[in-house]
Amino acid sequence: MAMSEGSSPGVTLPEAPASAGEGAVGDAGAAALAAGTGGRAKRTRVKAIMEATDDPLLGKTVAVKGWVRTKRDQKAFSFVEINDGSCMKGVQVVIPQDVPTYSAVERLTTGASVSVTGVVVESPGKGQRFEVKAQEVHVVGECPTEYPLQKKRHTLEFLRGIAHLRPRTNTIAAVARVRSALAQATHDFFREEGFLYLQSPIITASDCEGAGEMFRVTTLPSEVSKVPTLEDGSTDYSQDFFGKPAFLTVSGQLSGETHACALGDVYTFGPTFRAENSQTTRHLAEFWMIEPEMSFADLRDDMDNAEAFVKHVVSHAMEVCGSDLEFFNKFYDKELLQRLQRIKDKPFVRTEHERWLAETRYDTAVFVYDYPRDIKAFYMRDNEDGKTVAAMDLLVPGVGELIGGSQREERLEQLEAKMVEFNLSPEDYWWYNDLRRYGSVPHAGYGLGFERLVCYVTGVENIRDAIAFPRSPGSAEF
Amino acid sequence: MAMSEGSSPGVTLPEAPASAGEGAVGDAGAAALAAGTGGRAKRTRVKAIMEATDDPLLGKTVAVKGWVRTKRDQKAFSFVEINDGSCMKGVQVVIPQDVPTYSAVERLTTGASVSVTGVVVESPGKGQRFEVKAQEVHVVGECPTEYPLQKKRHTLEFLRGIAHLRPRTNTIAAVARVRSALAQATHDFFREEGFLYLQSPIITASDCEGAGEMFRVTTLPSEVSKVPTLEDGSTDYSQDFFGKPAFLTVSGQLSGETHACALGDVYTFGPTFRAENSQTTRHLAEFWMIEPEMSFADLRDDMDNAEAFVKHVVSHAMEVCGSDLEFFNKFYDKELLQRLQRIKDKPFVRTEHERWLAETRYDTAVFVYDYPRDIKAFYMRDNEDGKTVAAMDLLVPGVGELIGGSQREERLEQLEAKMVEFNLSPEDYWWYNDLRRYGSVPHAGYGLGFERLVCYVTGVENIRDAIAFPRSPGSAEF
Repeated sequence: MAMSEGSSPGVTLPEAPASAGEGAVGDAGAAALAAGTGGRAKRTRVKAIMEATDDPLLGKTVAVKGWVRTKRDQKAFSFVEINDGSCMKGVQVVIPQDVPTYSAVERLTTGASVSVTGVVVESPGKGQRFEVKAQEVHVVGECPTEYPLQKKRHTLEFLRGIAHLRPRTNTIAAVARVRSALAQATHDFFREEGFLYLQSPIITASDCEGAGEMFRVTTLPSEVSKVPTLEDGSTDYSQDFFGKPAFLTVSGQLSGETHACALGDVYTFGPTFRAENSQTTRHLAEFWMIEPEMSFADLRDDMDNAEAFVKHVVSHAMEVCGSDLEFFNKFYDKELLQRLQRIKDKPFVRTEHERWLAETRYDTAVFVYDYPRDIKAFYMRDNEDGKTVAAMDLLVPGVGELIGGSQREERLEQLEAKMVEFNLSPEDYWWYNDLRRYGSVPHAGYGLGFERLVCYVTGVENIRDAIAFPRSPGSAEF
Repeated sequence: MAMSEGSSPGVTLPEAPASAGEGAVGDAGAAALAAGTGGRAKRTRVKAIMEATDDPLLGKTVAVKGWVRTKRDQKAFSFVEINDGSCMKGVQVVIPQDVPTYSAVERLTTGASVSVTGVVVESPGKGQRFEVKAQEVHVVGECPTEYPLQKKRHTLEFLRGIAHLRPRTNTIAAVARVRSALAQATHDFFREEGFLYLQSPIITASDCEGAGEMFRVTTLPSEVSKVPTLEDGSTDYSQDFFGKPAFLTVSGQLSGETHACALGDVYTFGPTFRAENSQTTRHLAEFWMIEPEMSFADLRDDMDNAEAFVKHVVSHAMEVCGSDLEFFNKFYDKELLQRLQRIKDKPFVRTEHERWLAETRYDTAVFVYDYPRDIKAFYMRDNEDGKTVAAMDLLVPGVGELIGGSQREERLEQLEAKMVEFNLSPEDYWWYNDLRRYGSVPHAGYGLGFERLVCYVTGVENIRDAIAFPRSPGSAEF
């Protein structure tokens, strides 16, 4: 589906700048457009120039601040492309030789930071409507030739080794922008649906998260000889920070249930952890999860919400990150935009697990639901058939499972019996069971691995490129 | 300032319901108003009824689902107050004895969950404009008399022991709503300012966060005898998950700088950790931080942004959580609304550290800036006087320090010299220093402890009540 990593453009620097000629210099004047409110020194974001669709910028004096991507010298001019991270494209700055600070131009190497004051003019070149004719140029920070991001393509693997610099590349910057848009669209969606944002705990001493592969969190000495022990030689956790073993959470679901059973509808959006020793392109030791939980809701409501959510965030990304997605469509996955459009437009398929044929190819997302109870978690609600549970997974072409969810077992008696059946102790879950003891309600929720969503929407294949600083076995650098 | 905790209303149940009389039953009909989109079973949130300011609801049939707060039986009617967490107030439901399902009423004890279908009518009682005249009543989940949240006041301390149930109380539910509104307003603010949301890493093996009090994250065996050791008896971290000691982050700032120096303006909003063994009302072992980082920005820009941010989130909370804040103003801090209004309206005071007199009382927020360099962190930019750094703190009445920030030292030579001076090794910070080596830019940022903001906006004094499941020494329950 996507290009292989080795050949993919980590830094796809643009073609040589289009020829500029004299340009139509408008009236210099009026105040420059500020980057934001709050009195900040007047900086015009490149995005405001490159994505302007009407003319108010034309002829205005602006201050552009960013980093040099390319430079091309001609007889009477230099052409410098400046990128400030606000959008995929850089703005072309034309520096006439008669600018008083022209001597700065020779220090404008790739990666140098620069501040340019100039006038927005129509660009005679292809690829952009406007360019900036410089009146003043200042080198803010030079960039020596050993800068690792010179004008050439780098593999994504190479870039992972310089994760502190890789957001300066087209690919990783675009991922960062799409990721941010998806996160903000997530908050928008749930707010509009009347959900409260719950920040569920990261450290947990609760036994009931169980599920093996957890990281332990401790303040006990790292030197073995100094670790306090009990008479039988076991570690004395009463001297650890929390007075007992504590771990990093694998899910906010149980916390979400406590709050849904009080506040109606809530969602979490926070980091979760798996200490699985697997080095795949689909797993991270630290990743972000979105976990909505809805009271007075059943499995159908769960699927309805998940479908509306995915459609919303995909639509939003297409709306605000158009040029980033075009870039991914061009260099990573030629079918990306087409696939996202289908997600946006077509109803998702729904098919019972029993009738679902894995080999059937759908061109859109598929909910598989009503799974055999024995392969699913204890908290999922038993269906009337005694064989299946009200669980669902959302499968999408390319990424596979994007969402897993279920209606929760809200009947105390059934839940406690199932815990025993699954070799769990109801006593460990006293507070979880309390939700069923006092004014229990049908409720349902799901979890979405955020980095998988980022991979899906960008077409980037390796999940380590979907998060700023990936954590995996042997790797927690930066 | 606020009431003492012992006497504060953990669960402030309302007065007895106002008398209802017959009410003006409108035309039952039209589809009920759904709780959200996505096809969910028609549920009308209580908020939609209680905060309705015009009449489209009047006469409509609605389905209200929630939990019983109080019940009062009269000869021909029962009055039940139902709360669904969507707002402070519950809706009054009038159940005439001739409703076919009237027998359900006796099981409607405090805490029971209930589903009511009925017609929205004008309420003759005080305190609400509308009430619901029931046509059908179903008990969804009963609530036995041992339910800990009976109709009486509980201390906040007691409620911390049942953190899984406390969002069912007025106080903690209101905190949850205000917290959610503040979080969503945070994302709004930074998006409108053109910032990207960066999710900085939680687990770090980077030495440079230093600062002592960190939690260690490990997958090594908890049994001392099984921990792998080197010949000298020290722990063999090459066998730990990350191949070296790893810790929970204390700040996302350094990650923020890497991205600001590529993407312009970014902010983090995630959990951070301190393993400090302090049991105070102002410290948590796990708390959420908001950390913006801006390129091409100085200390003044930093303060401007922080001021605009605080004003924005306070205004938003006042706008969308009015009745919650009125509740806090009434029961926790009589000056709360007045103080928030001043934050919203008045410019913040700015005063150099040298001239700042701690005993001067300001009635609004104060930026103290240009601190002596020796008491501040190494990464803060040295001022020209050689004695101070471009650092600022935002102090607010009641809570104290709400924000700490600085312009960062962007000059490589000065930064490395200062590291040596502060007994740090520049080699450990190679990647941080790279930001200064390649196209360095002036940049600035700050950190805001989110729970302190929640305390400030709600008037709640103990920070353990500002987060869903607080973590502190000896306590990581639920």
